[in-house]
Amino acid sequence: AASQIPRTEPTLPQGISRSTFNKAISEITQTLGAENVELNDKPAVDNGWYMEHPNTHDMMHVTDADALVASAVVYPSSTAEVQAIVLWANKHRMPIFPISMGRNLGYGGAAPRVRGSIVIDLGKRMSQILSIDPDDYTCLVEPGVSFYALYEAIQAKGYTHIWIDTPDLGGGSVIGNTLDRGVGYTPYGDHWAVHSGLEVVLPTGEIVRTGMGALPGSNTWQSFPYGFGPIQDGLFSQSNLGIVTKMGLALMPNPGGHESFMYAFASPADLAPLIEIIRPLRIANILENVAQVRSAEQTIAVQGRPKTDFYSGPGMLPDEVVAREVAKLPCGPCAWVYYGMAYGPPHIRQYKLDIIHREFTQIPNARRVDPSTIPRDNYFWSRNNIAAGVPDLEELLWCNWTPNGSHVAFSPVSPIRGRDAEALVKLARERRQEYGVEMFPAFCVGLREMHLIVEIVFDKTIPEARTAAMGCLRAMIEDAAALGYGEYRTHLALMDQVASTYSWNDGALMKLNERLKDALDPNGILAAGKSGIWPKRYRGRGWEM
Amino acid sequence: AASQIPRTEPTLPQGISRSTFNKAISEITQTLGAENVELNDKPAVDNGWYMEHPNTHDMMHVTDADALVASAVVYPSSTAEVQAIVLWANKHRMPIFPISMGRNLGYGGAAPRVRGSIVIDLGKRMSQILSIDPDDYTCLVEPGVSFYALYEAIQAKGYTHIWIDTPDLGGGSVIGNTLDRGVGYTPYGDHWAVHSGLEVVLPTGEIVRTGMGALPGSNTWQSFPYGFGPIQDGLFSQSNLGIVTKMGLALMPNPGGHESFMYAFASPADLAPLIEIIRPLRIANILENVAQVRSAEQTIAVQGRPKTDFYSGPGMLPDEVVAREVAKLPCGPCAWVYYGMAYGPPHIRQYKLDIIHREFTQIPNARRVDPSTIPRDNYFWSRNNIAAGVPDLEELLWCNWTPNGSHVAFSPVSPIRGRDAEALVKLARERRQEYGVEMFPAFCVGLREMHLIVEIVFDKTIPEARTAAMGCLRAMIEDAAALGYGEYRTHLALMDQVASTYSWNDGALMKLNERLKDALDPNGILAAGKSGIWPKRYRGRGWEM
Ligand SMILES: Cc1cc2nc3c(=O)[nH]c(=O)nc-3n(C[C@H](O)[C@H](O)[C@H](O)COP(=O)(O)OP(=O)(O)OC[C@H]3O[C@@H](n4cnc5c(N)ncnc54)[C@H](O)[C@@H]3O)c2cc1C
Ligand SMILES: Cc1cc2nc3c(=O)[nH]c(=O)nc-3n(C[C@H](O)[C@H](O)[C@H](O)COP(=O)(O)OP(=O)(O)OC[C@H]3O[C@@H](n4cnc5c(N)ncnc54)[C@H](O)[C@@H]3O)c2cc1C
Repeated sequence: AASQIPRTEPTLPQGISRSTFNKAISEITQTLGAENVELNDKPAVDNGWYMEHPNTHDMMHVTDADALVASAVVYPSSTAEVQAIVLWANKHRMPIFPISMGRNLGYGGAAPRVRGSIVIDLGKRMSQILSIDPDDYTCLVEPGVSFYALYEAIQAKGYTHIWIDTPDLGGGSVIGNTLDRGVGYTPYGDHWAVHSGLEVVLPTGEIVRTGMGALPGSNTWQSFPYGFGPIQDGLFSQSNLGIVTKMGLALMPNPGGHESFMYAFASPADLAPLIEIIRPLRIANILENVAQVRSAEQTIAVQGRPKTDFYSGPGMLPDEVVAREVAKLPCGPCAWVYYGMAYGPPHIRQYKLDIIHREFTQIPNARRVDPSTIPRDNYFWSRNNIAAGVPDLEELLWCNWTPNGSHVAFSPVSPIRGRDAEALVKLARERRQEYGVEMFPAFCVGLREMHLIVEIVFDKTIPEARTAAMGCLRAMIEDAAALGYGEYRTHLALMDQVASTYSWNDGALMKLNERLKDALDPNGILAAGKSGIWPKRYRGRGWEM
Repeated sequence: AASQIPRTEPTLPQGISRSTFNKAISEITQTLGAENVELNDKPAVDNGWYMEHPNTHDMMHVTDADALVASAVVYPSSTAEVQAIVLWANKHRMPIFPISMGRNLGYGGAAPRVRGSIVIDLGKRMSQILSIDPDDYTCLVEPGVSFYALYEAIQAKGYTHIWIDTPDLGGGSVIGNTLDRGVGYTPYGDHWAVHSGLEVVLPTGEIVRTGMGALPGSNTWQSFPYGFGPIQDGLFSQSNLGIVTKMGLALMPNPGGHESFMYAFASPADLAPLIEIIRPLRIANILENVAQVRSAEQTIAVQGRPKTDFYSGPGMLPDEVVAREVAKLPCGPCAWVYYGMAYGPPHIRQYKLDIIHREFTQIPNARRVDPSTIPRDNYFWSRNNIAAGVPDLEELLWCNWTPNGSHVAFSPVSPIRGRDAEALVKLARERRQEYGVEMFPAFCVGLREMHLIVEIVFDKTIPEARTAAMGCLRAMIEDAAALGYGEYRTHLALMDQVASTYSWNDGALMKLNERLKDALDPNGILAAGKSGIWPKRYRGRGWEM
């Protein structure tokens, strides 16, 4: 049931004629070599799977398959070639869109925001680990380095004293994930916070190094993140102000022991008191990694079995089916499951685990699930990997919930408060009901805030399913903003809406973003519309979605 | 022996006639009220002390007293008044320079970079603590909130579960220190890393809120630092791209116990192996706060006694005098002293202290100094305060080393390596010899890098002493850059030089800074020259120092 995008000629960017396009393409082909310029002129089968995903559009498209597509993909091999591409784009006013690996599933995959853009697939040929410093616990990587690749390189060197941090899926790019402010599950889970030093090609083609990298011969580019004077790094995160070609990152020291734990909470009403208990423990670092609080539904779905195994009606599983199915799993009957890890040598872990147990079991019927009773093929062991920085792919399994399973995420940030957790769950459940979508909510508790990640799963080949998913997302974004919650990250197709919720003082921040965009990208060639920021030449022309 | 700046009329900014100046002043006086506009037209006595420092120039000036002075000081009471001042400055092309409290001693104090600027003293009337959240452990402050004030407010509320972090001197501004990327000595010592959310008046007068503050009614401005889209915060640190009127900051949870420790190391040659021992312990968080490794000289000087108490010759104390005097102190005979703190309940502290002891005592003759043997008036207890977030002023005492004691700092960043520590100490000692200055080097070990802070102490009333201090600093900056070390922060008068060392790829980063400056401050009114960044109208006119 793979959907096809019928196409024999590339979808051109608005305002660029076929002859200009062809001329420009032949020019960049001369620069990069024919094998490094690929026209998107074939009917695109979009049933690739995660590790062999298309780089011309979103493998899990929530818009029409043909709405956000590339006209061509180019493969630079060096910073100098990225610079050449950028200069070429300026010359032809050609919209370009960089991806590191394009596995940004749930947020747009490899799709460009502007239809017909040239996608710059940085990862394919720029995939070197430039350094791993075993004394400073840092590395310097190119865009094509995945969490798997970094992990494996460290193992290959025998550096057992060094850990990495990985998000739930290990196939993404360290740079791509970090720039999008992705999150992992060791104490180094806030990737943006532990990056140090960027090399960036600006939209006008200049190459800069931030932080200590601006000092010729610097010996601290990867170990001191700030440098001297203003810090520009933030401008290149979730943005369209530069193409990052190198990034430094701090690596975690092996904590000398680790131990996963899991608690099951019986009632939906346990969420609020649990969140209240989590807050001080998380801030005090007794809970040391991102706290994952998952719904029973997701716990059922992550087995990888389709919904129809459990229920043949429309919409989500009825409560009684959820109760029946979750009861069969190692977590036992419950509404919410907590996954965590304690780090350090045994007596240090025990100190923390005792406090956690004492606090969690204040909730009636809270149950610790003994890991020794959990079968090795259970998802618990996948979380155990991830919280220890071992890349994994099991999380993909809940995409099997529907045929042609795709997903898109709603990711609001909130205080770590019981009442906020309840308000967000209520909001999501109501809209779920209204739009008849299937969704899995999970709370990821950072340090002083939590992200609720609501994954909407849908069959991408059914237009109504896509429309419902989008409608539900748009409604939730609006509901959330009215209550003071904003998204930390969003899908390409929702960026204009999310950006518009950050409107304090008559949109002052967006005006600043636009001022920066116009100063750094006067021709508006780079990733126009990313994060809702449009360059001058596109503004006021109705390009917002 | 206070030096006087003879003056009866304000020193005007270059290019502004006295009549334009007077007209402009009367205009801003109408806006702010006469009591909130102060002309700098009196002979300025610059022997104020730390808590009653002048706000028209640097109390510890290393240039001519009259080189970096304000023509007037204005005192806004609100963000709207800051905005009014900025609009006024644009109208008259008047150079303005914001300070929060102006206690940036060692780096320029309250002085503006451009002679005759209007200093905006934000702290005097904008000094409210807007919130302290006892559940999230965050606060929101205005520029005039000092570390003392924040600490006292928390005590007054009875929030014993909340700690603050303080730099060595508690009288500075939380905002001013954080924007200059100051450092404190609890685990929350990297202030910039724990800030969350800024309110900023841009050089053209718009008011923006960064992070979640851009979402109207946001409930996470102080708990989630990033928001959506590009992160602009870094642009307002060590910069001249905006005036910060509010800032959020994370506060540390009381760790449930703390314990200072001190080790003395016998030989100058112990520095390199000590630094090698510190690195992995610091990265593993066994050493939990900024490691302070201080020289015997500074340990003698911080008693607050003048050099002449110990030695009447010129230059630094001879080695045998250092050896004789340090032997009389609680640390006993030594070349380097380590000050640290362990946090948490007793058995958790002991676990860390045991590892530290085992590792430190691998160095021959390393000695732990038992705190119970240290008199209550010893500086050790001051460090004990600071590492527990209790503001203090004792650190000022080494300024008594010379009459009219002033200081200026050389603050290079380096890897945490024995060979780097040795190279930096060697470099500083050689230049000290050459320039005949007095200096105290101390290493502050962050997480993966260390700052060497070399304090040059001089008598500001002796022009030759100032010239020697400046010459020595300039030579050290150059030496350091040639070896790949760059400063993390510097004195106003040295910003051009330090910025020029960050010259990778033909000064690409400075070109980016200038592009940003011109886009955000087209009239070049705000803190021109700060961090070496000059607006268009000043560039190429030889204003660099
Ligand atoms: C089942 C499932 C679970 C997931 N769990 C997590 C999770 O736990 N944590 C998490 O963070 N994410 C998660 N994701 C989302 C996603 O898979 C990851 O964030 C992934 O790492 C992003 O893809 P990428 O690394 O290939 O980045 P890319 O797709 O290459 O890039 C991401 C974004 O950054 C921009 N960008 C990329 N490279 C550059 C560059 N060099 N210069 C400038 N801009 C650039 C791109 O324009 C794009 O918008 C999950 C997804 C799925 C399907
Ligand atoms: C003995 C001694 C020990 C010291 N120890 C330490 C230490 O341990 N750690 C440390 O960090 N420092 C230390 N210092 C340096 C200094 O005292 C502190 O950093 C102090 O906090 C800075 O002064 P301030 O907070 O009043 O900031 P200010 O002087 O108000 O400002 C500092 C800088 O930031 C800019 N700025 C201030 N406010 C704003 C604003 N609202 N918007 C835009 N720009 C602004 C100013 O232009 C100025 O350049 C020490 C100094 C001495 C004399």
